[in-house]
Amino acid sequence: MRLADLAERLGAAVEGDGETEITGVAPIEEAGPGDLTFLANPRYGHHLKSTRAAAVILGPGADGCGRTVLRTHEPYGAFVAALYLFDTRPRPEPGVHATAIISDSATLGPRAYVGPYVVVGDDVAIGAGARLYPHVVIYPGVRAGERFTAHAGAVVREDVAVGDDVTLQPGVIVGGDGFGFLPTGDRPTTIPQIGTVVIGDGVDIGANTTIDRAAVGATRLGDGVKLDNLVMVAHGCQVGDGSMLAGQVGLAGSTVIGRGVMAGGQAGLAGHLTVGDGVRIAARTGVVSDVPAGRTVAGFPAVEIGLWRRAAAALLRLPDILKRLRALERRLDRAADEPER
Amino acid sequence: MRLADLAERLGAAVEGDGETEITGVAPIEEAGPGDLTFLANPRYGHHLKSTRAAAVILGPGADGCGRTVLRTHEPYGAFVAALYLFDTRPRPEPGVHATAIISDSATLGPRAYVGPYVVVGDDVAIGAGARLYPHVVIYPGVRAGERFTAHAGAVVREDVAVGDDVTLQPGVIVGGDGFGFLPTGDRPTTIPQIGTVVIGDGVDIGANTTIDRAAVGATRLGDGVKLDNLVMVAHGCQVGDGSMLAGQVGLAGSTVIGRGVMAGGQAGLAGHLTVGDGVRIAARTGVVSDVPAGRTVAGFPAVEIGLWRRAAAALLRLPDILKRLRALERRLDRAADEPER
Amino acid sequence: MRLADLAERLGAAVEGDGETEITGVAPIEEAGPGDLTFLANPRYGHHLKSTRAAAVILGPGADGCGRTVLRTHEPYGAFVAALYLFDTRPRPEPGVHATAIISDSATLGPRAYVGPYVVVGDDVAIGAGARLYPHVVIYPGVRAGERFTAHAGAVVREDVAVGDDVTLQPGVIVGGDGFGFLPTGDRPTTIPQIGTVVIGDGVDIGANTTIDRAAVGATRLGDGVKLDNLVMVAHGCQVGDGSMLAGQVGLAGSTVIGRGVMAGGQAGLAGHLTVGDGVRIAARTGVVSDVPAGRTVAGFPAVEIGLWRRAAAALLRLPDILKRLRALERRLDRAADEPER
Repeated sequence: MRLADLAERLGAAVEGDGETEITGVAPIEEAGPGDLTFLANPRYGHHLKSTRAAAVILGPGADGCGRTVLRTHEPYGAFVAALYLFDTRPRPEPGVHATAIISDSATLGPRAYVGPYVVVGDDVAIGAGARLYPHVVIYPGVRAGERFTAHAGAVVREDVAVGDDVTLQPGVIVGGDGFGFLPTGDRPTTIPQIGTVVIGDGVDIGANTTIDRAAVGATRLGDGVKLDNLVMVAHGCQVGDGSMLAGQVGLAGSTVIGRGVMAGGQAGLAGHLTVGDGVRIAARTGVVSDVPAGRTVAGFPAVEIGLWRRAAAALLRLPDILKRLRALERRLDRAADEPER
Repeated sequence: MRLADLAERLGAAVEGDGETEITGVAPIEEAGPGDLTFLANPRYGHHLKSTRAAAVILGPGADGCGRTVLRTHEPYGAFVAALYLFDTRPRPEPGVHATAIISDSATLGPRAYVGPYVVVGDDVAIGAGARLYPHVVIYPGVRAGERFTAHAGAVVREDVAVGDDVTLQPGVIVGGDGFGFLPTGDRPTTIPQIGTVVIGDGVDIGANTTIDRAAVGATRLGDGVKLDNLVMVAHGCQVGDGSMLAGQVGLAGSTVIGRGVMAGGQAGLAGHLTVGDGVRIAARTGVVSDVPAGRTVAGFPAVEIGLWRRAAAALLRLPDILKRLRALERRLDRAADEPER
Repeated sequence: MRLADLAERLGAAVEGDGETEITGVAPIEEAGPGDLTFLANPRYGHHLKSTRAAAVILGPGADGCGRTVLRTHEPYGAFVAALYLFDTRPRPEPGVHATAIISDSATLGPRAYVGPYVVVGDDVAIGAGARLYPHVVIYPGVRAGERFTAHAGAVVREDVAVGDDVTLQPGVIVGGDGFGFLPTGDRPTTIPQIGTVVIGDGVDIGANTTIDRAAVGATRLGDGVKLDNLVMVAHGCQVGDGSMLAGQVGLAGSTVIGRGVMAGGQAGLAGHLTVGDGVRIAARTGVVSDVPAGRTVAGFPAVEIGLWRRAAAALLRLPDILKRLRALERRLDRAADEPER
């Protein structure tokens, strides 16, 4: 694609030769001739001089160091738009592989791709444009909307309901039995998990993440929820619209998260909590009590992030604090021992 | 089911109309007409007035707020019993799917369900009433007892031994090679993991949890052990009867856990430790030394939970402590500087 | 095998009867007659008297307690060598199962084992001696070197490049889409992950671990990298040669780890960090800033391990420190209140 054409499609201005041919997108330190690149992080600014990229996307005022530049007010958005243009990964053609086993009572909308060895159970209904990659297993009674994509090895258990435009990465498990056991004598009694999981529209779920079904009612993921890899959503949780949970985050049972909540990697939330809209939870935070809307929390137990930062910084001075305390005690002791003058 | 009949089966007393028809079980805030419900958490008591449930299970003395009540001394037990009665999820019928590949040298007990694309290796022996859902892979030499249930995508590797009444949720991996490498020159040498995994009776394992085989001998899970999702049990660990590990707990190699131990989510235990019977490990605890029987521990490094709570509370006062310390130092300095009077 | 023959193969000396027949290797407390054993941990030294093992591997100077001993300067290396000799787990014979679906455009080197229901996509090229266990899915465009082993349920997505001697345990996901979303109005926009994953030679990856593909460029694992189970490597990370990450470690996006880095279980690294060669990261550490080569860090936020240990120890004394501080304040207050004498 000519750089000038690309600029037009991205709503950017060319500074340099618009005839330059662009064939791909690459990180600034790996880009070769023909690549468009992007300065994602100012700390990599020194690469701008040495990059072999054909052109670089920059925001207003950023120094191009003599490079051919695509100048735009929203460089990150332009970069993402360019990724869409150059996303040439092959997509499977519609069609149902001969080895797919689809129940007679299941319905699939038009233009579905169903790969080898996919298993679709009784009474499943999936909307138009589905992509079920090899080895996906859909248990009986599942309902999914349009453009449902499930990668290899993803499993959706009985009666789960899924909205439109939902993508499961490989190995995602939706609807496994929640962890419920009643202590009874020698051996715990299993609490049947007769509830389900309800997933909204536009939800993306990362590789090997697990969403358990509720004991009763439903575990719920709202519209636009994004879960990274190896996330654990326990039975009965509710995650509000647009919330994003990073890798290895864990939610214990029945916790309710509002809209637009962001949780960093490896954060954990205890059960039966309520977390308000727009809350930000730092990576590795352990939340053990409710969090009002709009707060940013960190630490374990989680507190307001500024407080945690001050405490964490002071913690490293604690050995010194202890020494100073001992010194003060000795000074006072000496003062007390001194004869009156 | 008539409420009066339900009451009899649950050993509860009806307060209200015993003719009420009950068709399901639901959470108190989602229950509709026909649903039985349960007040699991006193903080949801305000829902009792507004619920549309047909009846609610309550313990002795709890105010029914005018609702139709199933009164019992063990409300939680009655709730679980009701879940069993209303668990109408379809169970697959016995039968072996034509696409299942079962070695000639493998034996399966009567009444087995073996789903599409299941693979069962040489010399496998599985007892009566097995349920192997689609895409389960059982490597050669595995032994399993009666009523063994493995959900889609579960994998059991070579020579693992499994007791009766064991259930694997989707994606569980039993018997993967333990993480053992000998530092040798440029590249570590792999230590062959020639041991196995031995699982007792009545064990439940959550989605995508992994139990590694031992280098030598066996990784062992005792009877009635319950593991939640995404738990990691490393090679050579032993988990005693009835112990329960919540989501994302990790056990490093060769650690031995007693009976009836409970570990909260995201807790981690270092390798080669011994944890006594009945120990309780709070969520997110990092255990780095042995824990005697009966203790409750928290924090990282783990200590007695009361001590950790006091320390964690005091930590938040640390910036203030630092200020007060400085103030004291200044007072003493000033006192020392003052001229004698 | 005669003990004398075994000794010769391990480069060890026999103390006792070289005619003893050795049939296996077992942990010291479980070993039976015929087993060779090994004292891995001095704390188990008391088992040396009671073990029923036929022989025990010991280093120079260690007391054999009257046992038959294999004496060697490198007891751990000899133990590993013995494990190789006694690793009798069946390996599948070369051959392609009739149910494997291999694209016409894919190439597999000689002596490949391809198990039931394996799916290999278009334009895949895999070197000699591959072992693809049942239900492995290789997406189009993947390249792998010689002796590539993938266990049941492992998934490798589009265009991933894998070196020689790489082993994936069951459930490993390589090349899932990275977690990239652009906040846009109501619902985040997905950032296409058009990059890939490049894996070096001699890499081992544990069960259910996930390695995401990069947005652009590649996520890279160097030669000899070892990842334990349930590890998360996010898009754009680079892990240097010989580095080892223990169970449940998480790396956020674009973090670069040097050579020979060791990270303990459940450690987490924030995104866009640089960690130097030979760094050691203690279990459960949270790394939030760059770490120079050679350091050993612990705690959260991570600091030099000695500092963290002192701070963590002092933390437990904090309630006491607070009391002593109050006592000092009272003493000074009283002193100030006292009438002049």
